[in-house]
Amino acid sequence: MPCGEFSLIQTYFTSRTGQRDDVILGIGDDAAVLQLTGDEQLVVTTDAMVAGVHFPENTSPFDIGYKLMAVNLSDLAAMGAQPRWASLALTLPDADEGWLKAFSAGLFELASQHDVQLIGGDTTRGPLTLSLTLHGVVKKGRYLKRDGARAGDAIYVSGTLGDAALALQHLLENDEAEDALLARLNRPTPRVELGQSLQGIASAAIDLSDGLMADLGHILTASGVGASIQLHDLPLSKQVKARTIDGDWSLPLAGGDDYEVCFTVPSTCQEALEESAAKAGLNVTRVGIIEAEPGLRCVTSAGEILTPHGRGYEHFSSVQVEEVDS
Amino acid sequence: MPCGEFSLIQTYFTSRTGQRDDVILGIGDDAAVLQLTGDEQLVVTTDAMVAGVHFPENTSPFDIGYKLMAVNLSDLAAMGAQPRWASLALTLPDADEGWLKAFSAGLFELASQHDVQLIGGDTTRGPLTLSLTLHGVVKKGRYLKRDGARAGDAIYVSGTLGDAALALQHLLENDEAEDALLARLNRPTPRVELGQSLQGIASAAIDLSDGLMADLGHILTASGVGASIQLHDLPLSKQVKARTIDGDWSLPLAGGDDYEVCFTVPSTCQEALEESAAKAGLNVTRVGIIEAEPGLRCVTSAGEILTPHGRGYEHFSSVQVEEVDS
Repeated sequence: MPCGEFSLIQTYFTSRTGQRDDVILGIGDDAAVLQLTGDEQLVVTTDAMVAGVHFPENTSPFDIGYKLMAVNLSDLAAMGAQPRWASLALTLPDADEGWLKAFSAGLFELASQHDVQLIGGDTTRGPLTLSLTLHGVVKKGRYLKRDGARAGDAIYVSGTLGDAALALQHLLENDEAEDALLARLNRPTPRVELGQSLQGIASAAIDLSDGLMADLGHILTASGVGASIQLHDLPLSKQVKARTIDGDWSLPLAGGDDYEVCFTVPSTCQEALEESAAKAGLNVTRVGIIEAEPGLRCVTSAGEILTPHGRGYEHFSSVQVEEVDS
Repeated sequence: MPCGEFSLIQTYFTSRTGQRDDVILGIGDDAAVLQLTGDEQLVVTTDAMVAGVHFPENTSPFDIGYKLMAVNLSDLAAMGAQPRWASLALTLPDADEGWLKAFSAGLFELASQHDVQLIGGDTTRGPLTLSLTLHGVVKKGRYLKRDGARAGDAIYVSGTLGDAALALQHLLENDEAEDALLARLNRPTPRVELGQSLQGIASAAIDLSDGLMADLGHILTASGVGASIQLHDLPLSKQVKARTIDGDWSLPLAGGDDYEVCFTVPSTCQEALEESAAKAGLNVTRVGIIEAEPGLRCVTSAGEILTPHGRGYEHFSSVQVEEVDS
């Protein structure tokens, strides 16, 4: 490869990543070599992003890098795992220095917050496509999965729902959106600490990427249960709340891109959860309850059950073929 | 996602992969959970392939799947690692059932030979881009790296060199190529067993993806040494040998896509190597020697040092930006 391009990669990736003690061999050999201890299990997730599919073509490279790391960290958060090592497959139309500089800055800003080291990858020329494989660890058997929800468990979500989808609506309609709202779309905060604190407390967990209905639906299906959600208990920003006044709950229920954690907690653990959340200043809200009857019922403040329908409940990024989750 | 597409992925990926005992949680949650033992280290490599860059646009999907697995297995081979788990990021223009069926058949044909389980990934719509992250293990400290070559060590390569590059030449010139030659391009055989047998024997190892000169060059640079190669000792098929008669050694030296292993062996270990290779029926050839003087000298049968130059020594896939190896 031309030397100039090689040194761009060196400048913006190899030399900028943190150095963890458990990386025996990092970038620069045929593969990386990593050390786990005997009582740890390895947790692996891969998320890809394609320009024009997962983000508008004019998204800033800083935000693309930040979000690529965020969506993968969010998957580890929903497993209760501690993040450690990342491997990046980057396909670029050309080795644009400004783009690489900003992209890597966004990627490493979030990576360094979570002590994640870049341990390898592959950079090739082609249409802009990004894929990150992120590795974390959990103590043996302490991971959070989807199939443990039982009737009577309370349903919680972190943060607020629907902000990212509202920001995207503004962008697609060429409206001005407030910076705080845009940040919810472009720089989501993965709930990594929350996920780890849920070990031994949550009976099931999932990260919210496709909207509460779809993702809670995965927990319900995997666990063989149903649920009721109290719509007026959903944690909403004032902007999203304003959109629900006419009874349209599509943003918080099906907007997607929240990157919050949805989890279920048996009644015996709810005190422990609320104590631990209060102590850590973590924002979690109880929004419903797991029931034996299959299906998801969204209950209005008048006690009516809302039946979602129409395109409002489709994922805005419906061009995505399929996530083989993990 | 449309249900039909979901079930295609289910049919051709999730349900077709092998099931390893050390996969605690496979496809279907936010991430996979994997078990290592306390005396193992994790080895991770990522290689991406882009249509029109890494393979001609008309390459069969079976061969694309096979080769994607092969090039990653080849990296693990060069580390001496035992392959275990794969994560696939697949970007596709559309969910073409015939394509997915053939691609997955190629991928799993080679994966099952090496007991590799698909543990997750992400499939999205976009220009055809494929990225595989492959995980293996080595006993603690037993991996093969690049920086251990010392003056006096013998240099070996597996298999024969230049066949894949010759096959590509035929394809690009619309010539007929023999099936055996085409197979060397489209279905390379990763030297996984050889790599593992080199633990404790090889002082350095690398897989040959960019041609012997470039890849041996990485060992020399990392180890701070030089080398001499005897051109007439290079293991060549009769077709490649015929191309060297006029003194053009570009195919075996710089052709690329060999996916053989190049490794160095201290004189104290050469007997062990040749015994173990003979016993296992492994085809390895001594081609040169590591020297203290920096640089790579290619020596002809007349004792002259050939100085490679001109475009014959460039990688045919020179549009590739950079491999951040691993």
